[in-house]
Amino acid sequence: MKIAIVGISGRMGQEVLKLLRLDEIGGGVSSGTSDEEFEKAIKNCSVAVDFSTPAISIKAAGHCAKHCVPLVCGTTGFSDEEFERLKSFSKHAPILYASNFSVGIFLMSKLIRMSEKALDDFDVSIIDRHHSGKKDSPSGTTLFLASQLEKSPQIVSLRVGGVAGDHVCSFTGDDEEITISHRSFSRKVFASGAVKCARWLVSQKNGFYSLEDYLNAKK
Amino acid sequence: MKIAIVGISGRMGQEVLKLLRLDEIGGGVSSGTSDEEFEKAIKNCSVAVDFSTPAISIKAAGHCAKHCVPLVCGTTGFSDEEFERLKSFSKHAPILYASNFSVGIFLMSKLIRMSEKALDDFDVSIIDRHHSGKKDSPSGTTLFLASQLEKSPQIVSLRVGGVAGDHVCSFTGDDEEITISHRSFSRKVFASGAVKCARWLVSQKNGFYSLEDYLNAKK
Amino acid sequence: MKIAIVGISGRMGQEVLKLLRLDEIGGGVSSGTSDEEFEKAIKNCSVAVDFSTPAISIKAAGHCAKHCVPLVCGTTGFSDEEFERLKSFSKHAPILYASNFSVGIFLMSKLIRMSEKALDDFDVSIIDRHHSGKKDSPSGTTLFLASQLEKSPQIVSLRVGGVAGDHVCSFTGDDEEITISHRSFSRKVFASGAVKCARWLVSQKNGFYSLEDYLNAKK
Amino acid sequence: MKIAIVGISGRMGQEVLKLLRLDEIGGGVSSGTSDEEFEKAIKNCSVAVDFSTPAISIKAAGHCAKHCVPLVCGTTGFSDEEFERLKSFSKHAPILYASNFSVGIFLMSKLIRMSEKALDDFDVSIIDRHHSGKKDSPSGTTLFLASQLEKSPQIVSLRVGGVAGDHVCSFTGDDEEITISHRSFSRKVFASGAVKCARWLVSQKNGFYSLEDYLNAKK
Repeated sequence: MKIAIVGISGRMGQEVLKLLRLDEIGGGVSSGTSDEEFEKAIKNCSVAVDFSTPAISIKAAGHCAKHCVPLVCGTTGFSDEEFERLKSFSKHAPILYASNFSVGIFLMSKLIRMSEKALDDFDVSIIDRHHSGKKDSPSGTTLFLASQLEKSPQIVSLRVGGVAGDHVCSFTGDDEEITISHRSFSRKVFASGAVKCARWLVSQKNGFYSLEDYLNAKK
Repeated sequence: MKIAIVGISGRMGQEVLKLLRLDEIGGGVSSGTSDEEFEKAIKNCSVAVDFSTPAISIKAAGHCAKHCVPLVCGTTGFSDEEFERLKSFSKHAPILYASNFSVGIFLMSKLIRMSEKALDDFDVSIIDRHHSGKKDSPSGTTLFLASQLEKSPQIVSLRVGGVAGDHVCSFTGDDEEITISHRSFSRKVFASGAVKCARWLVSQKNGFYSLEDYLNAKK
Repeated sequence: MKIAIVGISGRMGQEVLKLLRLDEIGGGVSSGTSDEEFEKAIKNCSVAVDFSTPAISIKAAGHCAKHCVPLVCGTTGFSDEEFERLKSFSKHAPILYASNFSVGIFLMSKLIRMSEKALDDFDVSIIDRHHSGKKDSPSGTTLFLASQLEKSPQIVSLRVGGVAGDHVCSFTGDDEEITISHRSFSRKVFASGAVKCARWLVSQKNGFYSLEDYLNAKK
Repeated sequence: MKIAIVGISGRMGQEVLKLLRLDEIGGGVSSGTSDEEFEKAIKNCSVAVDFSTPAISIKAAGHCAKHCVPLVCGTTGFSDEEFERLKSFSKHAPILYASNFSVGIFLMSKLIRMSEKALDDFDVSIIDRHHSGKKDSPSGTTLFLASQLEKSPQIVSLRVGGVAGDHVCSFTGDDEEITISHRSFSRKVFASGAVKCARWLVSQKNGFYSLEDYLNAKK
């Protein structure tokens, strides 16, 4: 199975590249790639994995649709209109979109929803810890997790040393506490999630998929 | 609402007693209570909470059935025959049985089942930590949690100081880890769970209930 | 050994009371106690433990000085002048003063100072977690811990459920992290620390002692 | 400053290599290197970093002594006689030896000694967690930590997923707990520690040094 890497010069593209066996690398495209080479790279592959910009993602989705190549997209920053455009190509090829490809974080979002229902009189808090170079605080993942809850949790963030990413969500009652935590050992986990999705997506029908579809299918 | 405490002289009975308001205490019975007083205590109450021995629990269940008084039972050590006996009384009064009344631990058992399905190639481990006076190791709760999993987790136990009860279950992959942990702040949590069940059970139909029924009803 | 409890009607006084054996309770005084009874209570004891108000503490210290009774004082809120007054009585009786009697927190303050020196290029953070009823944030203990460090740590606080008191101080580098954490199982720990100090103080010379003196003596 | 890497083909040698700037790499030797090239590599450098085997380490130490080149050695498995041999070369060049170059773990060993003294009636436990491929259990580092304590701690080990290395040492009393934990984000930390020692060692006098000497000097 050949995999095309869209956005190969970016940090995530490089992480994806490191994860593939030599014989799996079907080609890489980035902002400087000519249209002809771009299409050719997609056409020659069984699936494309994309961490780039909205404009490049939409171009990639167009080529994927034309050549029936599944697309895994982890690009962020789409306008609503752009996102609808991306989605429309899924009539002609399977597309899986996620803003976070860690299966652990996705699972965590379900675990905390379930916990909130069972422990509705408990206080909820989220601690996120990331490396000192991370500028946004709280993290996008923390905001995603908080969005899954009915009540607003107390949120605190620390930016220290080289922490790849820790998220700790606690449900605290008067007498007991349930804590659900996720720890990334390295940033590789996000690339790894996207590649796993790609391997699954090649055998799916046309349509627009989420990480949840992938996880449900594996059950 | 008056609550009868069956096994009032035991450690758990005392914890239940501490949790009730004066006007809720409907009576207490223990191994030394005469049959007449035992029946009278049950008859005068809206619900009974029982942490005792199988023989006393069955006696309590009989009186509860006769007077249509709901029973919350947390006694352990029933033989199969005894347990069936207990169960049979639930035709005449609602009975809720659980070996552990912490809603947190019950939730945890569901969270780890869900996690195992989503992360089936991850290594699973459970750490249990309890006070140095606890003799069984691993804890009954650890065995209960492990019984909910398909694969056998690595289990380790520590018996130190005055720890009321910590259980930590981790799902560890190459690049990320999900940890679900439960911490009891004191032994009160188990009594508190039983009393909450009792308050719910008074408005239920006859039948045999588990902690799961209580939790599902609250959703 | 008889122990007098100064401030016996307060929360901490009650915790101290619970910790003593019946034959150790030498008397209790509070704001409503007459001068005569106050002095008598102190006079009849081998040591006094005081969690009250500055005015009462100074009165207690006066009686202790007169009758050569050691005093363990955990009262807070002294003015500088009041504190000097308290101190002056230590010429006539040993007085040990501390704003926090948990030996664990005291040890932690030394461990983090040592860690900061060894890991001077690491980022430092403190998380404090307390029950939802606690109004001050960060906790006084967090401020005490931070005051022991040369650099200002990142500090975050959560107020959730019934947490008795957790303090977590991390030193985080690019590749590794040292974390020193303290967990109170209940508020009893503070009363327990004061009583331990009292038992030690009875065999000390006149003078003004800190928790550090007690800990150093035990080495 | 040029650094020679002894044992450059091994896992740790490769980690050291990754950490150096191109202009710092003074040469690399391994089991297959000729004597002449070996000596030349050492001679041309300001300092040598060695993770190899006892025989190669002793050879390296000989060349270092001859050419007054400082040596940082992290090789394990020396016999007593071999270790004395290594040590003897430190008359002619500074040699720093350590079985673990993580400054965090070294600090931890001092923190737990200090904690044991202050909390002598607390129960002590160590949890070590490493990746599933690690064969020895408990880890060498756990044994090192335990050797620093007077009492034997309870020790448990987990071998799960891709954990680089977690060590958690708790001192647990009836009412409170101090926990000192160390977490390696990656194996790089050990190479990084050795390189830091190398940069310090170049300006030291002849003699046999430990990681403690390096840490004390930095205070």
